[in-house]
Amino acid sequence: MRRRKFWGWGWEDGGLSGEQQERVAQALAARFELGNVAIAAPPRLEELTLPAPRCPIPANLATFCSSDTYDRAGHSYGKSFRDVVRAFRRDFSNPPDVVAYPRTEADLVAVLAWCSRERLAAIPYGGGSSVVGGVEPPSHGTYAACVSIDLGRLDRVLEVDKRSRAARIQGGAYGPAIEEQLRPHGYTLRHFPQSFEFSTLGGWIATRSGGHFATLYTHIDDFVESLRVVTPSGTVESRRLPGSGAGPSPDRLFIGSEGALGVITEAWMRLQDRPTFRNAASITFSDFASGSEAVRAISQAGLYPSNCRLLDPLEAMTSGAGTGQDAVLVLAFESADHTLDAWMSRALECCRDHGGNVPAGAGKTRTDQEASREGPAGAWRRAFLDAPYLRDLLVAMNIVSETFETAITWDRFADFHANVMTTVLDAVQRVCGRGQVSCRFTHVYPDGPAPYYSILAPARPNSQIEQWGEIKRAAADAVLEQGGTITHHHAVGRDHRPWYDRQRPDGFARALAAAKRELDPRWVLNPGVLLDEPGASPANPQTKKG
Amino acid sequence: MRRRKFWGWGWEDGGLSGEQQERVAQALAARFELGNVAIAAPPRLEELTLPAPRCPIPANLATFCSSDTYDRAGHSYGKSFRDVVRAFRRDFSNPPDVVAYPRTEADLVAVLAWCSRERLAAIPYGGGSSVVGGVEPPSHGTYAACVSIDLGRLDRVLEVDKRSRAARIQGGAYGPAIEEQLRPHGYTLRHFPQSFEFSTLGGWIATRSGGHFATLYTHIDDFVESLRVVTPSGTVESRRLPGSGAGPSPDRLFIGSEGALGVITEAWMRLQDRPTFRNAASITFSDFASGSEAVRAISQAGLYPSNCRLLDPLEAMTSGAGTGQDAVLVLAFESADHTLDAWMSRALECCRDHGGNVPAGAGKTRTDQEASREGPAGAWRRAFLDAPYLRDLLVAMNIVSETFETAITWDRFADFHANVMTTVLDAVQRVCGRGQVSCRFTHVYPDGPAPYYSILAPARPNSQIEQWGEIKRAAADAVLEQGGTITHHHAVGRDHRPWYDRQRPDGFARALAAAKRELDPRWVLNPGVLLDEPGASPANPQTKKG
Repeated sequence: MRRRKFWGWGWEDGGLSGEQQERVAQALAARFELGNVAIAAPPRLEELTLPAPRCPIPANLATFCSSDTYDRAGHSYGKSFRDVVRAFRRDFSNPPDVVAYPRTEADLVAVLAWCSRERLAAIPYGGGSSVVGGVEPPSHGTYAACVSIDLGRLDRVLEVDKRSRAARIQGGAYGPAIEEQLRPHGYTLRHFPQSFEFSTLGGWIATRSGGHFATLYTHIDDFVESLRVVTPSGTVESRRLPGSGAGPSPDRLFIGSEGALGVITEAWMRLQDRPTFRNAASITFSDFASGSEAVRAISQAGLYPSNCRLLDPLEAMTSGAGTGQDAVLVLAFESADHTLDAWMSRALECCRDHGGNVPAGAGKTRTDQEASREGPAGAWRRAFLDAPYLRDLLVAMNIVSETFETAITWDRFADFHANVMTTVLDAVQRVCGRGQVSCRFTHVYPDGPAPYYSILAPARPNSQIEQWGEIKRAAADAVLEQGGTITHHHAVGRDHRPWYDRQRPDGFARALAAAKRELDPRWVLNPGVLLDEPGASPANPQTKKG
Repeated sequence: MRRRKFWGWGWEDGGLSGEQQERVAQALAARFELGNVAIAAPPRLEELTLPAPRCPIPANLATFCSSDTYDRAGHSYGKSFRDVVRAFRRDFSNPPDVVAYPRTEADLVAVLAWCSRERLAAIPYGGGSSVVGGVEPPSHGTYAACVSIDLGRLDRVLEVDKRSRAARIQGGAYGPAIEEQLRPHGYTLRHFPQSFEFSTLGGWIATRSGGHFATLYTHIDDFVESLRVVTPSGTVESRRLPGSGAGPSPDRLFIGSEGALGVITEAWMRLQDRPTFRNAASITFSDFASGSEAVRAISQAGLYPSNCRLLDPLEAMTSGAGTGQDAVLVLAFESADHTLDAWMSRALECCRDHGGNVPAGAGKTRTDQEASREGPAGAWRRAFLDAPYLRDLLVAMNIVSETFETAITWDRFADFHANVMTTVLDAVQRVCGRGQVSCRFTHVYPDGPAPYYSILAPARPNSQIEQWGEIKRAAADAVLEQGGTITHHHAVGRDHRPWYDRQRPDGFARALAAAKRELDPRWVLNPGVLLDEPGASPANPQTKKG
């Protein structure tokens, strides 16, 4: 049986071939004037010495709980750069004591009852793809032990409603399993975060994941019709409704709650027909600023492209989409219903109005089945989904490779972007001596873009985490001070807490803590993520740094 | 100075002319085989005897608070049918003791401090257009007195951000004042609930008002970029962001909170360019069912019409849009950016596919400035906004005239609609002997419509409220039992509490109460609306009926 890596992205047998690795090493050597690029060996299970579990597994849970090394090591971290570096350091000093794999909601209820009774930290775990420390055990606090609750066995599409185009899906279902189960019905959830292959519906909802659509329906939030959430104080199930005005939305309290309020076991999700019409074009701009003006015009025109990804020249070059001279806008409309010439035609006018270089012949709608999987779009999609494998290789090559993302209103974007770029480039220079920072828009709104920044820099031996930490703090401070959000779709976790605490209105923090106390009276669910227990010493000492 | 009626809709000098009233009387007499239709005289201020105020106005608040009869009577009720009937009965037995008109946020803070200190029920009051008992004083409970807080003096557009197409607007600004202040900048909020002329931004947000757009952006929720909310425990202000994934949305806790968590004093709102392209058509269908199939197809096509109002034959006839033989779909696209022929063309195909009768020549985009204000659309808009004046006249004519609205997924719609129609028609027959029930869609979603039902029936003398109450209970029970929401955009207030309590997940109710306790420690804000104080006797004894 194919097994997941315990220390990094994806399958044990996944990742880049030797030849691909060699090409990456050569490119890095050239880019950063490095000599031979050594590739560190990833950790092997037998190298690890985990602390002994601090609690026995109760007899009634024994059939679906484990304390073995593979399970505990594999649930120690998410998949951030920092996480993978720690794994390369063979640092598994704070694993969960037990990993539970509930097969039913009753199993889950039993686990939460145990955790509440014994006051064990209980961490809901979907695919474990968090890049913000969202699934790792608290390093401090008053918990007797920690249980990671892996929802992966709750992986079914339970019901499909074709008239309303919706499906009831279990929280532990991974992206590919969801699509496989919907395909026979002719539908798709069409939610493709970069973590798609190794993340779950429940995880997406709990972290307000950003998906396929660049405009309009950007977050998973927009596709949730109703939720079923198991909390230590009972199960909360909202009514299936296309829209409602009956008080504050119950769903919106749990969407983004990052496992701190309950465990999402099921959701009715709005689906898409599988698109059959596709109209795509790549438009170049002499610089990022003029490209962003075109994107602003498109975002305010009411056209709603499915893809509207603006890459700055460096980002375009790094991802193989450009020469490094121009900014590139990857623009696409798709539909299962109608041809898209009128939509693309007007969007291309917006591009020309702002100096865009539109390729001759662009703008024709294709009706090929699965057009999106072929050609450049298909290649981009594969590279996009495989990027985390590449990132793990860069860790092995002692490179700092990370990203951060945000959203900002258009009026502040130009100054914001200039300031963030300067600040982060300065930090990279100071900390690493050299390196690169590039930017793309992942999603855009009528009132502003969601810029996504990528950093690549050579590290000093054994100091990747510390070097990245210094860069990240500079970046996050700049984002916050300039008016952005600490995260557009990567979530808060433990890593973003200091900045989230500054961003979040105090009254809302207090209200949220009160709501948590009601749903999770013993404060066992993902302690330190989103909230510290009022009056207790923080489960997440990082927050004191903010 | 033009003054608002204290007993009903709109201006003291507004309403139907004598000639118009005569025409309505004749139409009703013919419709329901009535003899002479008498028109009861509305109440005059000098006829009222209000209970003495139960608390003095503190000296520091005297300049902006009032206990005079006009102010207290005018803030005793919202504008539901039941409210106007009570006014016609000269029943002002439970008015607020004081009406506060804060001129600044500091005034508001002082009022809330006073209410908390003395434990006075504090009712945030926008335009007072609630049709669900959302602004009336609690009839029971342990409050020493009741203060209605009229936000009408906080009526400014404070800031316009043209690049992000957003504006910072005070919570007490009425619809027309918002549009007047935005027009010089070329923008519109384009939110036109039926209450538009006498309701406020803060009220819309607090009640999740349903607006102009029939698809996509239906509720005011979708236009909120950030909020500023004054609570008894401090001010909560969210960050202006086009999108964010940083924890559960702070704004979504306050959107729909109906004055129970705080008072919305400001919001950054997303704006629209004033549309210059318009493409409208009226399509007829032999019945409501085939029309709704066409609407389902349009709602799932990704076309996003601004108007998609399907009227059943009776509704079409009653509103003057049809002969009573056919269902009528009023379909429109609008844009400030592009011609809309391709959009309308495809939508008309969907109509034809489901038996729609599309008028010859339909589907051409007009570019006339203000096209929407002219011709049938303009006339419909005027009639729509004036409908509450007509409703008040019907009260004076001893007619039961009310509406209820909901939303339901498509898979359940046909059975739902048949069941609700049968149940309500039965109730009307039983209670009133005769009468009519008609239906339209106000908003539609890919996963279901928002049906809106209108009732018209002659009442027995002096029993309008009781007769309507019996019909409403039957309607609301049917809506809940068949899977709908108790309200799509009319809010909960006191009147919908019994059904809201059944609809709302218990765990969410407890979390919301805990959040309220944190923000409003003495539980003074709109007690009984959304929530009763845990452990206290209900401020809203109606909820015991549910």
